Amino acid sequence: MRTESASAKRNTSGLRPITLLTDFGLDDVYVGVMKGVIAGIAPGVPVIDITHGIAPQDVEQGGRRWAAAVGFFPPGSIHVAVVDPGVGSGRAILAARGRRMTFLAPDNGLLDFVLPRAAVEELVSVENRRCFLEEPSRTFHGRDIFAPVAARLSLGFPLRKLGPAVREYRPAGLKPVRRRTTRGGEWLIGEIVDVDKFGNCITNIPAGPFGALKEIRAGRWRFKTLASSYSSARPGKPLAIVGSQGLVEISVNRGRADHLPGLARGGRVTALYS
Amino acid sequence: MRTESASAKRNTSGLRPITLLTDFGLDDVYVGVMKGVIAGIAPGVPVIDITHGIAPQDVEQGGRRWAAAVGFFPPGSIHVAVVDPGVGSGRAILAARGRRMTFLAPDNGLLDFVLPRAAVEELVSVENRRCFLEEPSRTFHGRDIFAPVAARLSLGFPLRKLGPAVREYRPAGLKPVRRRTTRGGEWLIGEIVDVDKFGNCITNIPAGPFGALKEIRAGRWRFKTLASSYSSARPGKPLAIVGSQGLVEISVNRGRADHLPGLARGGRVTALYS
Amino acid sequence: MRTESASAKRNTSGLRPITLLTDFGLDDVYVGVMKGVIAGIAPGVPVIDITHGIAPQDVEQGGRRWAAAVGFFPPGSIHVAVVDPGVGSGRAILAARGRRMTFLAPDNGLLDFVLPRAAVEELVSVENRRCFLEEPSRTFHGRDIFAPVAARLSLGFPLRKLGPAVREYRPAGLKPVRRRTTRGGEWLIGEIVDVDKFGNCITNIPAGPFGALKEIRAGRWRFKTLASSYSSARPGKPLAIVGSQGLVEISVNRGRADHLPGLARGGRVTALYS
Repeated sequence: MRTESASAKRNTSGLRPITLLTDFGLDDVYVGVMKGVIAGIAPGVPVIDITHGIAPQDVEQGGRRWAAAVGFFPPGSIHVAVVDPGVGSGRAILAARGRRMTFLAPDNGLLDFVLPRAAVEELVSVENRRCFLEEPSRTFHGRDIFAPVAARLSLGFPLRKLGPAVREYRPAGLKPVRRRTTRGGEWLIGEIVDVDKFGNCITNIPAGPFGALKEIRAGRWRFKTLASSYSSARPGKPLAIVGSQGLVEISVNRGRADHLPGLARGGRVTALYS
Repeated sequence: MRTESASAKRNTSGLRPITLLTDFGLDDVYVGVMKGVIAGIAPGVPVIDITHGIAPQDVEQGGRRWAAAVGFFPPGSIHVAVVDPGVGSGRAILAARGRRMTFLAPDNGLLDFVLPRAAVEELVSVENRRCFLEEPSRTFHGRDIFAPVAARLSLGFPLRKLGPAVREYRPAGLKPVRRRTTRGGEWLIGEIVDVDKFGNCITNIPAGPFGALKEIRAGRWRFKTLASSYSSARPGKPLAIVGSQGLVEISVNRGRADHLPGLARGGRVTALYS
Repeated sequence: MRTESASAKRNTSGLRPITLLTDFGLDDVYVGVMKGVIAGIAPGVPVIDITHGIAPQDVEQGGRRWAAAVGFFPPGSIHVAVVDPGVGSGRAILAARGRRMTFLAPDNGLLDFVLPRAAVEELVSVENRRCFLEEPSRTFHGRDIFAPVAARLSLGFPLRKLGPAVREYRPAGLKPVRRRTTRGGEWLIGEIVDVDKFGNCITNIPAGPFGALKEIRAGRWRFKTLASSYSSARPGKPLAIVGSQGLVEISVNRGRADHLPGLARGGRVTALYS
């Protein structure tokens, strides 16, 4: 039996940080209540909100934003995601220990976005009711299961005691960027996968390295170069730029790219490299 | 003089957690400033947001959401609610010590929702100006009174020194669910008292035990059974379910119940038990 | 070499609190990621949100709200503001150590609002790349520069080692309130500089002392006196009141002043004193 490497680096309080990502919003008391449950079981544990602004039941958006965030947290962190249209049904809850971090989420595709890069060492189905609140509800597993289980993991409770091992995680399958080679060069065919508060349209096209960029196409716009900063275009003008996730983004300096025709989540974006 | 039992269970830092519920929202600096004041008086005290998304000056919504949350926080917590249309007027501020928790709120009905179940041991009118910031404003008692008083309570300042004892709390009187017995069985006549981010319509009808449920009526919908999970109905279809507060909720699987005609806060809901 | 006076008062963890003010909103993961970076460098440091609800790229609103908040945090706090339309361009990032607090912000006018009252002892241009994340992006300096630099300051890293000293800060120049003396008395001519969640219209007119107030004019409204509380006017009626920043506000009891004609950010407000 090997030692849990993820637990090796704890913070000064001796507790592993817990992060939360949900679609609960902040107007209801759901997030506060989860933190209350955690504070009762693991007093003093740092709890950091990644976001609670995922669109309701939007597993893909939740997964993508989760993947963009978890790499920036301290080693040993316990990352909890609750975007859970199947709450109370038969869907499983999975806990996965990777080399640098632990994940806890419903088995609905959220983990597709984080497990492939996580070097998973242990994966279990969370079923040990002694780790839950008593008499879990049918509608709020965030409070009744996710919060108490995360708190126990933070205290050092061994992941393998949460439930039976799961042999293999089967990702639902992310839509990959397609490639097509033509006489003009190599095309990457992707799409806008998320839009942020500023209206930046984030694509699934990685920034490189694919040789020399010749053109990026989004809606009816054509970009011959990648901008060096938002403000390198004139105010109101669209630009293509490498965003903070290393993905191509379409943005408007001092404006919103998502207000331009054809630029919305799901919209096609292509890039030509020579 | 009896020991303050609520202070018996402190967290590892020796400080009692403070929770905040307000209608301040998070776009202004009001909540941040309250936390700054608390951090200055009681460095290191855990401060947990229940929510700041209460509709402006909506005491009833604030009180109901507060009541749904406080039971899930650690014993000894200090729960502060500021939904306060009367700020700066003559309205009193009350502090109440219950067996498991302490409450601090304006005397405007917020406490109606939490005190009845709190086993109150001490109740005072908060008037000791030495516990406030100097020269309190007329418009922001959250900063000038609630935050510093909560911080001092967290440090162990005795509640009775905050001001004169109040003999008895007189609830403004919550609208109870009415009962009516007919030949067909017993009717509970209630209403939708809150709507959450997902559009779930939360009623004031408790889930049981009232014998066998025969029918729930809400708007023009009739439900013969309680659903076991949101996803047990087809997508887009309404259902009645026991929510996380133990109350009947009307929901739509993968949709919003509050978009259906007749389903809004204040809308009548009835339940027939045999 | 003098000791850093601002670091003299630390909290119990020995770490100086960090506050955050941005226009990032809370729906994306940007704020969470900044906190992850901070937690990795300075585990256990208290991080307090002032607000993340500044209107996108609205430096003036950001600066004003920052100035309204920072005075209420513990001495030694490190205040970070990221409202940064010029991210990735040549704009500088400044760090300033005042007598009671430290500031970190892009050099775009944000500091205009806080430095004049801060008794600045040291001011540097933040350029030491060893304090940044590796390979900073062009689009997210909050994560790559502001968060790691703030975390290092919290741990006691000396401000002067962040980059070259800046001789003098040149404020972009705030619009001051104008004064005009007439036979009727002294007029202060200002404007509505911010509107909060409740629709309160906050002006840049200080409350006093200027002698006896004779009249305040805003839109087509005339106020002969300052109200003692919001609820001192009848519901739905506008009033002028001294707000929590010591500035004149126009408000409506149980309503929104910003829904009245002529009352919006930038709208003229005048006050006559005898």
